[in-house]
Amino acid sequence: MSHDTPPGVTNLPSILDTGIVENGQISFGNWRGDADVPESQPPQALPPSERVGFAIMGLGRLTLGEILPAFSSCRLAKPVALISGRPEKTRLTAHSYGIGNDSLFTYDDIQRLADRPDIQAVYVVTPNALHAEQVESLAAAGKHVLCEKPMAKSSAEAQRMIAACQKARVKLMIAYRCHYEPFNQAVSKLVQSGELGRPKLVEAINTQIQGNADQWRLKPELAGGGALPDIGLYCLNGTRAVLGEEPESLFAQMISPPNDPRYKDLDETFSFMLRFPSGVMANCATSYGAYESKDLRIQLEKGWITLENAFSYTGHRLRIGQRQGNHKTVNEWRLPAGNQFALEIDHFAHCILNDLTPRTPGEEGLRDQKLMEALYDSARTGRMIHLPRES
Amino acid sequence: MSHDTPPGVTNLPSILDTGIVENGQISFGNWRGDADVPESQPPQALPPSERVGFAIMGLGRLTLGEILPAFSSCRLAKPVALISGRPEKTRLTAHSYGIGNDSLFTYDDIQRLADRPDIQAVYVVTPNALHAEQVESLAAAGKHVLCEKPMAKSSAEAQRMIAACQKARVKLMIAYRCHYEPFNQAVSKLVQSGELGRPKLVEAINTQIQGNADQWRLKPELAGGGALPDIGLYCLNGTRAVLGEEPESLFAQMISPPNDPRYKDLDETFSFMLRFPSGVMANCATSYGAYESKDLRIQLEKGWITLENAFSYTGHRLRIGQRQGNHKTVNEWRLPAGNQFALEIDHFAHCILNDLTPRTPGEEGLRDQKLMEALYDSARTGRMIHLPRES
Amino acid sequence: MSHDTPPGVTNLPSILDTGIVENGQISFGNWRGDADVPESQPPQALPPSERVGFAIMGLGRLTLGEILPAFSSCRLAKPVALISGRPEKTRLTAHSYGIGNDSLFTYDDIQRLADRPDIQAVYVVTPNALHAEQVESLAAAGKHVLCEKPMAKSSAEAQRMIAACQKARVKLMIAYRCHYEPFNQAVSKLVQSGELGRPKLVEAINTQIQGNADQWRLKPELAGGGALPDIGLYCLNGTRAVLGEEPESLFAQMISPPNDPRYKDLDETFSFMLRFPSGVMANCATSYGAYESKDLRIQLEKGWITLENAFSYTGHRLRIGQRQGNHKTVNEWRLPAGNQFALEIDHFAHCILNDLTPRTPGEEGLRDQKLMEALYDSARTGRMIHLPRES
Amino acid sequence: MSHDTPPGVTNLPSILDTGIVENGQISFGNWRGDADVPESQPPQALPPSERVGFAIMGLGRLTLGEILPAFSSCRLAKPVALISGRPEKTRLTAHSYGIGNDSLFTYDDIQRLADRPDIQAVYVVTPNALHAEQVESLAAAGKHVLCEKPMAKSSAEAQRMIAACQKARVKLMIAYRCHYEPFNQAVSKLVQSGELGRPKLVEAINTQIQGNADQWRLKPELAGGGALPDIGLYCLNGTRAVLGEEPESLFAQMISPPNDPRYKDLDETFSFMLRFPSGVMANCATSYGAYESKDLRIQLEKGWITLENAFSYTGHRLRIGQRQGNHKTVNEWRLPAGNQFALEIDHFAHCILNDLTPRTPGEEGLRDQKLMEALYDSARTGRMIHLPRES
Repeated sequence: MSHDTPPGVTNLPSILDTGIVENGQISFGNWRGDADVPESQPPQALPPSERVGFAIMGLGRLTLGEILPAFSSCRLAKPVALISGRPEKTRLTAHSYGIGNDSLFTYDDIQRLADRPDIQAVYVVTPNALHAEQVESLAAAGKHVLCEKPMAKSSAEAQRMIAACQKARVKLMIAYRCHYEPFNQAVSKLVQSGELGRPKLVEAINTQIQGNADQWRLKPELAGGGALPDIGLYCLNGTRAVLGEEPESLFAQMISPPNDPRYKDLDETFSFMLRFPSGVMANCATSYGAYESKDLRIQLEKGWITLENAFSYTGHRLRIGQRQGNHKTVNEWRLPAGNQFALEIDHFAHCILNDLTPRTPGEEGLRDQKLMEALYDSARTGRMIHLPRES
Repeated sequence: MSHDTPPGVTNLPSILDTGIVENGQISFGNWRGDADVPESQPPQALPPSERVGFAIMGLGRLTLGEILPAFSSCRLAKPVALISGRPEKTRLTAHSYGIGNDSLFTYDDIQRLADRPDIQAVYVVTPNALHAEQVESLAAAGKHVLCEKPMAKSSAEAQRMIAACQKARVKLMIAYRCHYEPFNQAVSKLVQSGELGRPKLVEAINTQIQGNADQWRLKPELAGGGALPDIGLYCLNGTRAVLGEEPESLFAQMISPPNDPRYKDLDETFSFMLRFPSGVMANCATSYGAYESKDLRIQLEKGWITLENAFSYTGHRLRIGQRQGNHKTVNEWRLPAGNQFALEIDHFAHCILNDLTPRTPGEEGLRDQKLMEALYDSARTGRMIHLPRES
Repeated sequence: MSHDTPPGVTNLPSILDTGIVENGQISFGNWRGDADVPESQPPQALPPSERVGFAIMGLGRLTLGEILPAFSSCRLAKPVALISGRPEKTRLTAHSYGIGNDSLFTYDDIQRLADRPDIQAVYVVTPNALHAEQVESLAAAGKHVLCEKPMAKSSAEAQRMIAACQKARVKLMIAYRCHYEPFNQAVSKLVQSGELGRPKLVEAINTQIQGNADQWRLKPELAGGGALPDIGLYCLNGTRAVLGEEPESLFAQMISPPNDPRYKDLDETFSFMLRFPSGVMANCATSYGAYESKDLRIQLEKGWITLENAFSYTGHRLRIGQRQGNHKTVNEWRLPAGNQFALEIDHFAHCILNDLTPRTPGEEGLRDQKLMEALYDSARTGRMIHLPRES
Repeated sequence: MSHDTPPGVTNLPSILDTGIVENGQISFGNWRGDADVPESQPPQALPPSERVGFAIMGLGRLTLGEILPAFSSCRLAKPVALISGRPEKTRLTAHSYGIGNDSLFTYDDIQRLADRPDIQAVYVVTPNALHAEQVESLAAAGKHVLCEKPMAKSSAEAQRMIAACQKARVKLMIAYRCHYEPFNQAVSKLVQSGELGRPKLVEAINTQIQGNADQWRLKPELAGGGALPDIGLYCLNGTRAVLGEEPESLFAQMISPPNDPRYKDLDETFSFMLRFPSGVMANCATSYGAYESKDLRIQLEKGWITLENAFSYTGHRLRIGQRQGNHKTVNEWRLPAGNQFALEIDHFAHCILNDLTPRTPGEEGLRDQKLMEALYDSARTGRMIHLPRES
């Protein structure tokens, strides 16, 4: 070493570059005292050459604002191709993510993907109404499919998608990102652990202001519904996930402001009640006409759980109310946050690499499609719907 | 002045004993700088001799734990008599509140109250099923009545109570304490001001663990219902108060754990949905089987309002979520708390002293009785109920 | 019983008027389930005739805004006389608290109190500079004295006050209200329990905007100093109380805005550092020129404690940060609040009734006087002061 | 387009792939209503080929756990080489970040970097005591240097580093990450805007538990001090940044547990007070022996600001207390978080690409080195130090 070692210091390299190298992994001992939370180990990522290659289909806001940036936090997946209908935008995007011009496709090119073994999976980020046909084509081209929620426009479509993927022996996963998000996972685990007794009531809400009438989310032909399938679905799916149980009956009400042309054919506000066999009741509500609020709350026998921003991309706050001796406490768990899109994509890559069934397969999406059909049915008829038990 | 005045100090008395005396009132100038919240003026109370004298009827937990202690924070009212069925307990209580032995009554003594002009009002704190008959007797004895909620066992009883008080020309007020509590008042005012746009969704919850099977609240003959009339009523009344509107339709579900003898004939858990003419939906839930949670939340076009512990005696937390430029803010309003029982009692005393109609008269209680009958009806039949418009 | 008992109900009185009467005390069984915090027992107060009678000396804001109203929450004490220099204000106040005209005194009347055995104690609420002489006179008249903080203008005065009360065999207590406030008590107990390891650092702050130049607090002859003795004292006393230890050295800086005549002779802002024998460092600061902030924070080996509004009359928030497994938690303890003035007054009444030494006797005030003298000394000289060990 | 367009939908591609493409940038119109916070635009990143290439020097925890992962969130920078003393660890790390074997260097290789124009900058992440010599070598090799804090072991070293970089005409930036973190930036801006009046007091704290005695941070020869230069520096630098002012005098105390061999020669706990010409006082404290706490608080004339976790990698919470009419409010600003390492690295890349001086150049580090020397001097002598005004 050319520079002077400071007096009293021996073995400088190992002091400079700490860590244990073992079986191709680098790890660190815990330098903190016991009272502090131990530092997490550095992320162990696959080298780029060994990661699962994804094409991303659809270059709207979600893709550019969240999904493509999320790939940089992935450990098992990488973006290798784009599928879009607007060439200039595609080229610009590809350039900035280092994707070559030979990996840019249009919606008509799906069968050409079959010739690209480096593209193992496709993340479908297009309007709901197009999912069914696109997934069928991708399955036919031999690609594993990660499909944005809601899965489809109808349960019939959802069933066709599942069948097509089964036939083609490719994996199908629905992008229910909250299943892969650490705070939502902690809530499900805590509820189902029984530590706070049995759950009795759930409240879930998902609202935001949908301003612009031109977007496809306000076109029922493309969106397949209004607030319910787009954002209310988080309340429905989130409640089922947290309880680990399927509802036995439901009731819904739908409200569209009478003179607003945007909501002539779809629901601005949708409120519903789910009753579960164990005796839990869930009250859910969603709206395109209220300031952003995306919270999940559970009342249990021995405490309450509030997950603020449960369905948001960031900003989760988990608080637990409980008795502690002769006073009440509210305990906030400060979990390390994670990019839920990256965690979701990595989960699918992990399933592909290890031939596993994803946590949220097509069947999970199908269940929600059936429930949303029943919810619209209840809202239309004003009647409570009793659901068939799945056999 | 016999003691030495410190050097440089003149007019010691006025420096020692600051304040302005004017028209029989003492007030203080604001000593704080503008950036701090000005100190409130000292409470201006009527001298004891001029306050409205109350008898308290029923010496259960609520009376001993909250109502009698609250009188010490009243400015216009004082406790002067007790009505109870257990002599030793009555004497002990009277002794500790400085109430003389000649002011102790039993439930059979109501007509004797007529001879006591110093007892101007009676606060009825007995099981719900007894309210109707007791209020009729008290009205007949010429006493103004402040009656605990729920008003009665049925809307028919409520109507009889209103009629009896009208006939006797005495005032009838239902003890909806939240109407007199500063945080609930601030929420109603903020919602109805339009500052955050129109309300779209309301969530209200009221749960607690009812442990002991022996108490009258678990005896339907005395309580007239389960969780709904006792604690769910706060969700119903609170939603109506905040919106300033009456529901047009409702739906409800009731759950009683199948093998729990306490809930053989009454609702442990009750969930309901209210639809309002303006297009607001409210989701409410109550349970005797979940850890204490008493919160009210409103989603509006331009923000959300959360009042934690809305229906509790203390511990209110008011937070308002809104956009501020390019970020979200959550603003906590730290209002000075007040003893809501004292404020409620003083309101009734004020109405008596000035011959005014209380903010929550018998008619307010009657409205809730009718709605609770419709809610039980919906829960029994599984049907949505459309309510008649009040003419 | 004249009214109809509802069908199925027997023994109505005991159901109506629940509770156990035993040894002259009323108590209630816990009706809540185990998961909820048990309801506290109703307050057990002495009847008015048996309570300790207090005269209140000085009718400024603190007396009218906090102390006199607090007596209504006392269980062992009652206000029976007033001592003031402004007759009309005194009469008005007495009238509204039901105090007779024969119980109104001026500052010259102190020796006349000797003839009133119903006045057992006097609460001195006058400017600091008058405390010494007044307490000496009250002791000579045979009255127990509860004296507002700061105890005096100097440690010499404080010593005279202690000696006078010892000689007259009356009790002397300094009104350090935070010692009697439940949240502050919980913090001291938690720190000293060792549950979170040893404390390492304390931060205490007490600021408010002093607007009006005319008040006695801005007259050094009456106040004996600026922000330090008035509000900074809470940081000093609070740190000592929480640690249960006396500082061994200190350093201070004082700042007065150069062109503000209000602060020509006294400290607007005062910052100080205390070093304790156990190795804890405390950083404290106070100012008359900053928006209200009155917080106490302790860093310990295994967690941190933050008591927001520690030194306020209300609004205490206690949060504890700690490791929980692999994440951090922040736990808010929601203790039942109590009126700290009432708790403080009742403590003194309890000591009088049972001949006990108060928790904050004159000696506690004397210690702070000596420390404040050392702090001013350090601020003047710019030197660290080493304190003598008390033997 | 081969698939069926849903009925009623025209111009599917532009609906599928929304956004405006202009001047090589993609942007989106705001789809949200005015009441919601507008969605931010997708990140606009340089294509990998045009980014500034960085070598990272030192492969300890900070590099593997934070800095290398942060590069994936950079828009202007990319990691292209590693410099380390342990070959196997270096190869493993390089493999997982897609860095070729020809880009791995040892500490002896620095002059070889001169032949690599693709390596434009080096991020130095080695023990403090090595910075000076390493930065001089890197400057000599013509590389821009981003150097971790603390800059050096002494102000003399810091001056040498600045001179070496000036002579070599390379840029030198000290990695004060908080300057590039959005919450810290918002606090500085708010304080200096005057919106809350003038600042009066600052409290800054930075504690954590240093468990393991073997690490270089506990070797004074390598660390150049104890808690102060490592973590207390954030309090010092953060206070200066927030106030935009240099202290005029200071006082410090240092505590090392008497029997702990880890702290025989260095400070476990360090507490200091800074006085600024404008009249602000800052109280700062740091410790290696207390549970993690990294908060910054400012008291101003018209409000207070608390930034919880100010100096942490994540978890920032910004709350502002203020008067609002007749009550206090506490307003939490929920800013979008950003990876502060990525923002810091991108800032340096931006300066290199545009030939600008970084916000935290070597001179900023030098100022802190001088102040830390004065702080240690004060702690050693127990005297207040008056600092020379910079001319």
